[in-house]
Amino acid sequence: MTANIEFIPGGTITSPRGFSAGATYAGIKKKSVGVLDLGLLVSETPPRMAAVFTTNSFKAAPITLSQQRLKTGRAAAVVVNSGCANAGTGEAGQADAAEMAALAAEKLGLSAEQVLVASTGVIGQRLPMEKIRAGMAGIIPSAEGGHHLARAMMTTDTGPKEVAVAASGEFTIGGVAKGAGMIHPQMATMLCFLTTDANIEAAFLAESLARAADVSLNMVSVDGDTSPNDMLLIMANGKAGGEAIGPDSPRGQLFQQALEKACIHLARAIAGDGEGATRLIEVTIKRAVTDYEAKRAARTVVSSLLVKTAVHGSDPNWGRILAAAGRSGAEMDARKVDISIGGIRLVADGAALPVDMKKVAKSLSGGEVNITINLNLGEASATAWGCDLSAEYVAINSEYTT
Amino acid sequence: MTANIEFIPGGTITSPRGFSAGATYAGIKKKSVGVLDLGLLVSETPPRMAAVFTTNSFKAAPITLSQQRLKTGRAAAVVVNSGCANAGTGEAGQADAAEMAALAAEKLGLSAEQVLVASTGVIGQRLPMEKIRAGMAGIIPSAEGGHHLARAMMTTDTGPKEVAVAASGEFTIGGVAKGAGMIHPQMATMLCFLTTDANIEAAFLAESLARAADVSLNMVSVDGDTSPNDMLLIMANGKAGGEAIGPDSPRGQLFQQALEKACIHLARAIAGDGEGATRLIEVTIKRAVTDYEAKRAARTVVSSLLVKTAVHGSDPNWGRILAAAGRSGAEMDARKVDISIGGIRLVADGAALPVDMKKVAKSLSGGEVNITINLNLGEASATAWGCDLSAEYVAINSEYTT
Repeated sequence: MTANIEFIPGGTITSPRGFSAGATYAGIKKKSVGVLDLGLLVSETPPRMAAVFTTNSFKAAPITLSQQRLKTGRAAAVVVNSGCANAGTGEAGQADAAEMAALAAEKLGLSAEQVLVASTGVIGQRLPMEKIRAGMAGIIPSAEGGHHLARAMMTTDTGPKEVAVAASGEFTIGGVAKGAGMIHPQMATMLCFLTTDANIEAAFLAESLARAADVSLNMVSVDGDTSPNDMLLIMANGKAGGEAIGPDSPRGQLFQQALEKACIHLARAIAGDGEGATRLIEVTIKRAVTDYEAKRAARTVVSSLLVKTAVHGSDPNWGRILAAAGRSGAEMDARKVDISIGGIRLVADGAALPVDMKKVAKSLSGGEVNITINLNLGEASATAWGCDLSAEYVAINSEYTT
Repeated sequence: MTANIEFIPGGTITSPRGFSAGATYAGIKKKSVGVLDLGLLVSETPPRMAAVFTTNSFKAAPITLSQQRLKTGRAAAVVVNSGCANAGTGEAGQADAAEMAALAAEKLGLSAEQVLVASTGVIGQRLPMEKIRAGMAGIIPSAEGGHHLARAMMTTDTGPKEVAVAASGEFTIGGVAKGAGMIHPQMATMLCFLTTDANIEAAFLAESLARAADVSLNMVSVDGDTSPNDMLLIMANGKAGGEAIGPDSPRGQLFQQALEKACIHLARAIAGDGEGATRLIEVTIKRAVTDYEAKRAARTVVSSLLVKTAVHGSDPNWGRILAAAGRSGAEMDARKVDISIGGIRLVADGAALPVDMKKVAKSLSGGEVNITINLNLGEASATAWGCDLSAEYVAINSEYTT
């Protein structure tokens, strides 16, 4: 089978068959035109599910709750809010998360244990439960509701992040994500939900999701900070039929590729919409000694404040790129390193080439900046995504709660 | 013996007996009033020496040269320039560093092998050797020249960083440092030179320096980036006389304390003068399980962009502090954590206390901000220093080479 994985124009998390979503404005966030802050996602039939949660020792109440409920294997819906992270809220926050799930369950005709909870926003404040109780009634889940869900998850995001891919006419994968700040591996998203109508074995679904996260959301860094609320989730309802896909199925690889394509799309969308970002930065490490080192070097370069500020100023300061790779822990011989920016090779064997720096500076001024570092040592490669650092980032984060 | 370690007002690296320093303007940096960019430090008699160098795989030419020469045990002087890092300059850069040492040796009546070299400034550009040759003649080393040396090391520093401490009338330790950007453990300085007239065993000197660095310069972070040029160096000439100080000497502990006092003073000066900084941030972790975890948690919190921007905005956003500690890898139970800002406890057992947030915000507005996080688990403590992140940092680093 030739893999034929295509983006679906205008696609979202409800593009795969059998999923409904919806959202409302409950009043958790300050109102401005078109703001939504409470959403639901539900599978019409019991789905298989897999998830990756934050590795931060400080975990928000909804994370603890969702981790427990995922283990039951019976979850079928997610309720999500923005504007308040329900993190650092103690026992009371746990009760609020449980009540939020119960409210969603009642509305959807499920048992409370079948509903996962996700929250994003300010840390250390209680959820306004009165508003959530009242708001829940206003949500009308539908097969077109993915776009609303995507907007209900936004905090400092400048726009919704959505994707859907069709895989060789076999099945569809859809997703929504929110990002913007406090974003760093592991894992590099605050919230990302995926759905698929593929018929897929539960164990392979979990394995596939972890692998896809490793080359996509875990390769994004906006500011080096990780959140207590990070959650990546996939629901697979099997509506596309056929034999269950497993690691040895002919369609196993197709599923993996399609999932990675969807996740990389969302990862790039999150990186490019980093708080205050004016450019998406893509850093590729080539010929590292190990995969681990390639990934680590790519993430270190894309996370470097000095690289981020240089890109912001369209400054081809390759010394900062080399210095960041050098401190990553990846084996490196500075005398062997080649560096290209926007396809123009400006460093060979660790020394500057006589290139037109104005051309390089120009390639740093576009919406997407590509930096390639060839270590010329081994065979491992990796790509990471980030964004430039602007004065706007400082402004956003200096004035977030006050 | 009661330790009596006092700062010497106006003290500098030439405060200990038997050291001379001097500097000139050679034309490496763009001229503005009072700028110096080439300096010398020399011991009148052959000193004992110890050093800590950058751990970055990408090492500048002067680092490679100085590492080799330190091993001979015969080094007695350092020549330093600012404005150009002589990093990423290949074989030609190695030759430039060697010539710079030879020029200094000729002037000082030493052999070239006795001179170490340090450079700081832009990466990827060759040293202007004509200017260095001409400039060397203008340096007049003297016992008052430490202040000039401190200024000759500055890049984006807003002022010189100098210290001298007198230890119970027994001996003196002096030092100069430059910092400002590309500063992160290990090690958290670009350049720091120390001198002492203490008579001290070579092995104990090296051990003492490493221990002092671990609680001072290695606990500073401005932007998470490390430099290819970092160097911390101490020369001990024994002019204070007495028996050689070793690990078991009565004065061994006095020396360690005095050295740490001097290094912490310089570390704080570097942190408070971080590029674009308006506040020094001091983060203390208490009752961590291990020393390593305490250090790591303190450094992670002080390095967090979200904490740095919150402090910049005088925003008592303790959730970001907790989240940064949580991702540090230190063992933590969020339900046991206490957090104080400026001496005001605002979180107990992981939940917010009803305190006057305006008071807390006010304590975030001073020149020095103290954050204490008590993990309430073990007995280990650590302190780290950093600074707030301002739009000015972005401006400085977007426009550095262009």
